[in-house]
This record gives sequence, C-alpha cells and structure tokens, in this order.
Amino acid sequence: MTEVHFDKIALIGIGLIGSSIARDVKDQGLAGEIVISTRSADTLRRAEELELGNSYTLSAAEAVEGADLVIVSVPVGASESVAKQIARHLKPGAIVTDVGSTKASVIAQMAPHVPPGVHFIPGHPIAGTEKSGPDAGFCGLFKGRWCILTPLPGTDADVLARLRAFWEALGSRVDEMDPKHHDKVLAIVSHLPHIIAYNIVGTADDLETVTESEVIKYSASGFRDFTRLAASDPTMWRDVCLHNRDAILEMLARFSEDLAYLQRAIRWGEGDKLFELFTRTRAIRRSIVEAGQDVDAPDFGRHALDEKKS
Amino acid sequence: MTEVHFDKIALIGIGLIGSSIARDVKDQGLAGEIVISTRSADTLRRAEELELGNSYTLSAAEAVEGADLVIVSVPVGASESVAKQIARHLKPGAIVTDVGSTKASVIAQMAPHVPPGVHFIPGHPIAGTEKSGPDAGFCGLFKGRWCILTPLPGTDADVLARLRAFWEALGSRVDEMDPKHHDKVLAIVSHLPHIIAYNIVGTADDLETVTESEVIKYSASGFRDFTRLAASDPTMWRDVCLHNRDAILEMLARFSEDLAYLQRAIRWGEGDKLFELFTRTRAIRRSIVEAGQDVDAPDFGRHALDEKKS
Ligand SMILES: NC(=O)c1ccc[n+]([C@@H]2O[C@H](COP(=O)([O-])OP(=O)(O)OC[C@H]3O[C@@H](n4cnc5c(N)ncnc54)[C@H](OP(=O)(O)O)[C@@H]3O)[C@@H](O)[C@H]2O)c1
Ligand SMILES: NC(=O)c1ccc[n+]([C@@H]2O[C@H](COP(=O)([O-])OP(=O)(O)OC[C@H]3O[C@@H](n4cnc5c(N)ncnc54)[C@H](OP(=O)(O)O)[C@@H]3O)[C@@H](O)[C@H]2O)c1
Repeated sequence: MTEVHFDKIALIGIGLIGSSIARDVKDQGLAGEIVISTRSADTLRRAEELELGNSYTLSAAEAVEGADLVIVSVPVGASESVAKQIARHLKPGAIVTDVGSTKASVIAQMAPHVPPGVHFIPGHPIAGTEKSGPDAGFCGLFKGRWCILTPLPGTDADVLARLRAFWEALGSRVDEMDPKHHDKVLAIVSHLPHIIAYNIVGTADDLETVTESEVIKYSASGFRDFTRLAASDPTMWRDVCLHNRDAILEMLARFSEDLAYLQRAIRWGEGDKLFELFTRTRAIRRSIVEAGQDVDAPDFGRHALDEKKS
Repeated sequence: MTEVHFDKIALIGIGLIGSSIARDVKDQGLAGEIVISTRSADTLRRAEELELGNSYTLSAAEAVEGADLVIVSVPVGASESVAKQIARHLKPGAIVTDVGSTKASVIAQMAPHVPPGVHFIPGHPIAGTEKSGPDAGFCGLFKGRWCILTPLPGTDADVLARLRAFWEALGSRVDEMDPKHHDKVLAIVSHLPHIIAYNIVGTADDLETVTESEVIKYSASGFRDFTRLAASDPTMWRDVCLHNRDAILEMLARFSEDLAYLQRAIRWGEGDKLFELFTRTRAIRRSIVEAGQDVDAPDFGRHALDEKKS
C-alpha cells in the first residue's frame, strides 16, 4: 500500500481550503508535523488560535524548509509570487501541489520556478463553500468529492500515487486530467455559474423600477440561490476570471448565443421551444442526483434546516 | 377579529401549491368542507389516496357549487379555461383567488368571466420548490413566506381582509401590490433566475468539448445549484415565460447588457471592475440572510443534510 503519512507538511495559505486540509490531516494523523504560513499576521494568529498546526510563520520560505509535502492554497493570481518565495528552500524529493481553481495558468506561474528534484503536481479539489478564511474550513470538506490532479509530462508514477493516496485519505475520489481540459470543464461547471450569479445579482441591484428591499423580500422565489454563489470571495473569483480567460470567454459566448435563442422564443411566443428546453434540462438534474452529486431534498432541504432551527 | 374559517373551500388544481394549501387547511381546520378538482383522473385519484379533501370531482364547475372560497392553482396559461368553466357556477358572495406566478395576464384571462357579486382577488404565494404534483406538497410550505395579493380597484375591504387572514393563518406575511409591478418584481427575483438556470444547463448539455458525464461528475462546484431550478415544471415555466413576456424581456435585456460589460472586463483583464462587482453583490446576500429569507449555512447546509443521512 502507498504510504499516506508525511513527516512534515507545509501549508501555504490557510483559508477555507488550506484550513480544511489542516483539520483533516490533524484529525487523521497524516503528518508528523504541520507548518502553517499565510500572508497576514491576523490570519496567522487565527490559525494558531484554532490550533490548526504545530508551528506558524509569515515566511513561506521558512515554512517549506524540510517539508515533504507543500500544499499551496492561495488565490491563483498569487501562485507565481509564492513559487518564487519558496523555490530555493524546497527540499529535494519534496512534493509541491496546489488547490487552485484554474490549472494551466498556475502551471505557467509555478513550474518554471520549481527546482529539479522537486515534484510539482498541480491539483484541484472540487469542494468548497461560499465562505472564506480559516474559520470557514471544516473536517470532511473533501469527503465524497472529486479531486482533479493535472500532472505534467514525465511525472514520477510513485510520487503521483502518493499524492493520490493523500487525497483519498481525505475522502476524495481522484481523477487525472490534462490541465487545458480541466480549465474547460471547470469553466462550464463552476466559473460560468459563478459569473452568471454575480451578474444577475448586479443587474437586480441596479434596477430603478424594483427596489432593493423588494428584491430581498421576495428573493425566496429563485433569486436567493444565486446570491449564495455571488457571496463568494471576490479576490478568488477575480483571479479565476483573469486566469482562465479563454475558456471562460468561450463558454460565455455559447451561453449568450443560447440565451438569445431563448429570448427570441419568448418574444415570439414559441411555447414549444421553451417546453423542449425546460424538459431536456430536467434529465441532467436527475443524473446529478443519481450520481450522488446532490441531495434530492426539494429547495435544497432548506425546510429541513428550518425545522432543525425551530 | 376577521373570520378565517370557510364553510366550503374548492381547490381547482391540486399540484404542489394546491395540495400544500389543502394540507394546511385540513391541519388547521380552516374549512367545513374541502372539495378538490383537477384535470386528470390520475391526479384526482392520487389526491383522494392522500386524503387531501372531503370530495373529489373532475368537474371544476361542480366543485365550485356552493363554495365560499375558490382557489385556482393551475399553470397560468390555463386560467381563462378554468374561469370559463366555473363562471356560471360560482355562488354570489364567493371569493375567487389564484396562486399564479404572473398577475396581469391572469387578471386579463379571468376577470372578464367572473360574474358580478363574486369577489375576485388575485394572489401569489412566494413559496415553492422545484417539485410538482400532489405528492410534492407539504404542511407549512407557506410558513414565514410572503404572499402577494394584487386586488383590483374597488375590491371590498372586508373581503380582502378575509383573504389576508386566510393566508396569515397559513403562516404567510401578506403584501398588496399593483399587478404590473408584481410582474416586474417577479421577473427579476424569480423568472429571470429560472430562465438563466434553464439556459446554462442547456448550454452545458450542448458542448462538444466537455462531456455530459464530466458536467455531472464535477457539478458540485456551482453548476448543480442551477440544475435544481432547471428541474422545475416545464409547463408552469413555459406559461410564465409566455404570460409575463414584456417584464421578462426587459429584465433579460438588462442582464445581457451587464453580462457584455463583464465579458469585456474579462477579455481586457480589468480586474478592478470584476472585483468591484464581486464585492457589491456580497452585500445583497448579507441583507437576504439578515431578512430571514435564507439560512446562512454554507453550501445550503448540504453538509448538514449529508450527515443526517449517514
Ligand atoms: N473556495 C472554494 O470553494 C474553492 C474550491 C476549490 C479550490 N479553491 C481554490 O483554493 C484556493 C484558496 O481558496 P480559499 O477559498 O481557501 O481562499 P481564502 O479562504 O480566501 O484563503 C486564501 C488564503 O490565501 C492567502 N492569500 C490571499 N492573497 C494572497 C497573496 N496575494 N499572496 C499570498 N497569499 C495570499 C490568504 O492569506 P491572508 O488571509 O493571510 O491574507 C489565505 O491564507 C484558491 O486558489 C481557490 O481558487 C477554492
Ligand atoms: N411551483 C412553485 O414553486 C410555485 C410557486 C408559487 C406559485 N406557483 C404557481 O402555482 C400554480 C400551480 O403550480 P404547481 O407548482 O402547484 O403546479 P403542479 O404541481 O404542476 O400542479 C398543477 C395543477 O394544475 C393542473 N393543470 C395543469 N394543466 C392544466 C390545464 N391546462 N387545465 C386545467 N388544469 C391544469 C394539474 O392537473 P393534472 O395533474 O390533473 O393534469 C394540477 O392539478 C402555477 O400557476 C404556478 O405559477 C408555483
């Protein structure tokens, strides 16, 4: 069996994702030692208060010294800066990975700085929430979720197997994919939905004929679902947009074309076209529920949550 | 205090909304007698199996005979046909109301057929799920949710107060609004979100570069939230699109304009514009949570539901 224990794990960035990894690693005893590094003193202090690791430092360089596994969990636009900071301090034979939501750009930013003898394997856990910071993380975030690794050509198979086993220990199912393909898949399943959600919430906010308080009061009829996505971290999402530009623009163009078709069907009262689309989309929902990717409780089970509260 | 009890309530249409009303009315003893009518024999049989009322008939005309309160809960496009069927059978002094998601069109379809001496007060409970049919309904669907009434000029104040009290007995908070304004508000808070959700799910379904199984597998990253809305009843939503055309087209135009701006910002790498929008939208989410219109559990509290299951 592949060894999943590491003597020393360095976590660079300790927000939602980094701190969830820390909690799982601690919980399952996957590391002899966890070193945590983040950019700001405030976040570092909070990580220490939450006892997420064994030692804490503002210096990413210092954190990676002697580490067997380095996990970078920062907004994708900060990848190059982190790579430059840690490059000369990485231990030969160490594994460096990341969790960024875009992959081709992260590889372009980091790979050139990773010294020979260090194994760089980019990754992306398909798990998260709209919250951010070290308090938002929790044990089990990755359980039952996919994690996509996008290894570069020539990656050592044993090292890859170790990283795979690590994510599997966190409860994830692991897939491998070409980075460019990853970026296309994520553009449609994640980036476009977030952009659309941000956009519609912005549109609602700008209306003159409908007041903001009306939008808030009656949001239960559909709108509020979008506001959850649109409450996600602005820095993370700005970086995703800037660093997966081509795939996002491609998907946006398709989306707009389809929307024009729908708009025309509404204008000309073509009920059959509307009915056809509205029926086809149901099948996809069914497949997602069957694949265990969502719970089938109506309204996201909010009523169940309401009852729990009261 | 305004009387909330009715001797005889007729429910025309017994899907998600109609059957939820039936359950609440029964639960709280708000009617001496509940008569249920629906279009198909299958649905009628199911309503009877679920014991949603006291008597059952396929004839809407028969159902409304002697009823003090008639609640029409059918797709908005069927409003005129129902109005024609029941018109000559309504008891003088009866209240006729509906629950349709668009109001100006329902009024245009029904008002001309309502005989003098019968009180027609259109309504719309802002509550629902993506499921449909009599099995989808449940007690408490309207609890804590808004119900909008759009009374016509000259509506009797006492009768209006009775209908208000009825919805309040179901746990709703009641608002009054001009029908045209209702249609604009709902276009942005409900109709546009559903149309956008249907559209993006359709776009994903049509891609050549990303397979359907990839879309399903990785849907947890945002996409699946849209599939829930896009699993809503096709007939209901076709009718909403056809019967709130002008307001929907207006909102769609605004949305597309804003999306073009965002697209341009992505193309030209204008991170500040993206960051500004992504920050502004967070405030709206906060207001919705503060107004009690959504729970603040991250990821819709799906993790809590997962735990309940396991
Ligand atoms: N959120 C999700 O749902 C999700 C899901 C999968 C993958 N991801 C990816 O995971 C990564 C982290 O996301 P997250 O949700 O954990 O974010 P987060 O909660 O906002 O945490 C971000 C972390 O990165 C640090 N950081 C921010 N800007 C930095 C910079 N310019 N240079 C160095 N460090 C910086 C922060 O440090 P300070 O607080 O000390 O400033 C913090 O430790 C991102 O690449 C994101 O694309 C996110
Ligand atoms: N779903 C929501 O979230 C929601 C929320 C607020 C308001 N509304 C509004 O409530 C109304 C009912 O929606 P629902 O969700 O309860 O729908 P549903 O579950 O699909 O039930 C529809 C009911 O209307 C009947 N019906 C369908 N087409 C008809 C026709 N052409 N003529 C006569 N009866 C017909 C059905 O009868 P058979 O089954 O016998 O054919 C069934 O009894 C709609 O106007 C909708 O806009 C819905």
